[in-house]
Amino acid sequence: MSQPIILYDIPGKGPVKAFSGNVFKARYTLAYKGLAFKSVWIESQDIEERMKAIGAKPTGRKPDGSDFYTVPVIQDPSTGAIVSDSSAIAEYLDETYPSTPTVFPRGSKALISVFDSAFMQSMGPMVPLIVVKNYTKILPTNEEYFRKSVEMRVGSKLEDISPEGPKREQHWKNAKDFLGVVDAWYSKSEGKWIMGDTFSYADIIVGAVMRCFNGLFEGEEWEEMSSWHGGRWGRLLEEVNKYSILA
Amino acid sequence: MSQPIILYDIPGKGPVKAFSGNVFKARYTLAYKGLAFKSVWIESQDIEERMKAIGAKPTGRKPDGSDFYTVPVIQDPSTGAIVSDSSAIAEYLDETYPSTPTVFPRGSKALISVFDSAFMQSMGPMVPLIVVKNYTKILPTNEEYFRKSVEMRVGSKLEDISPEGPKREQHWKNAKDFLGVVDAWYSKSEGKWIMGDTFSYADIIVGAVMRCFNGLFEGEEWEEMSSWHGGRWGRLLEEVNKYSILA
Repeated sequence: MSQPIILYDIPGKGPVKAFSGNVFKARYTLAYKGLAFKSVWIESQDIEERMKAIGAKPTGRKPDGSDFYTVPVIQDPSTGAIVSDSSAIAEYLDETYPSTPTVFPRGSKALISVFDSAFMQSMGPMVPLIVVKNYTKILPTNEEYFRKSVEMRVGSKLEDISPEGPKREQHWKNAKDFLGVVDAWYSKSEGKWIMGDTFSYADIIVGAVMRCFNGLFEGEEWEEMSSWHGGRWGRLLEEVNKYSILA
Repeated sequence: MSQPIILYDIPGKGPVKAFSGNVFKARYTLAYKGLAFKSVWIESQDIEERMKAIGAKPTGRKPDGSDFYTVPVIQDPSTGAIVSDSSAIAEYLDETYPSTPTVFPRGSKALISVFDSAFMQSMGPMVPLIVVKNYTKILPTNEEYFRKSVEMRVGSKLEDISPEGPKREQHWKNAKDFLGVVDAWYSKSEGKWIMGDTFSYADIIVGAVMRCFNGLFEGEEWEEMSSWHGGRWGRLLEEVNKYSILA
């Protein structure tokens, strides 16, 4: 492989630009497999135009029925492939680079896809909090678009989605309940990863979201969150980071 | 192993007494592992008293907070163990009889438990139809108790849960939607089973429910259902029956 794979991501305003949980899934997969990649930054208002221009596939539909484009997307100069969606990217990389460590152990694809859906669904009740925290991370040039698209989708002002007070406390409790569900899944495993002693895309999903939370909930909030469920989350993030060193 | 394992089940009025989907999970597991077992039949009104008497664990709580007992339960004369709940039974049998074929391939326990929850949750919208069909299968001596417990839980007359007409049609559509979700999971697999070429407890869950549906929806209804999604369900039931021959 001569040229690095291009990974499209949304830039945040921190010193580390990356902050999207879904893109972290692709980052961890690329890093775990030891594949060279470089980030190309696109603010969300520019994703649709840019992705159409390179010929990336949409990942869903907007309420009006038109195509919806998201990141991560990768562009692989070695094969010409352009792949949208974090789990499709992981599948593509496993197939295209079979000599690198696999993230879908033999026979695990269907089960990990069920895991993925169940994980995202369980996260649902804490999403308002994630949205509001995301708003604090984006670049000023992205604020108007972000606000408009969220308010249109949710039907209320951004400030009313998870204001400090009882509503925010409920969302924080929802976060703990969500991680409690995931903790119970890990407790069923025979080892420290979801697939026992075998690291897989299931752990990448969880690790990527933890990496995202680590950025969104700084300071005391992250201190508290990472200590929940016997300190599982701080430990897991540390372990995933050991396996997949991000640039 | 000298004495057969005892499997507690609810008797139906057909020539084959077994009709409970959850107990079929234990039946298929026992059969797949080639373990000798015999059925002991208990009507649902007698489950609590009988299970307390043998020292079985409850599997949940009633609305009033007291213990709730269900079948399947197994009693293993070789070890003295009494195990409630189909997936706990499968885990017990894998651990206790390691030389028999495993239903939880290495590293699959957590993922299969997520699969189990997602499967049961997806089934939710068709449950009214299952309840009403179950009523047609139980023994006359069980009818009063069955009706009372369902009507208390649901808060409406048994006849109003899924009457012939638009409501029933909706539940039948829900059944197809549910199996559409499961079909998409199978489509993600690399082989004919959920874990690719490896048969597992995930397939037992699906196969057991198909066996149950085969009994509940006889004649034309089963003809139709088994042909949905390219005939996957009829074929799957046939294949699972080949792997796990039920007495």
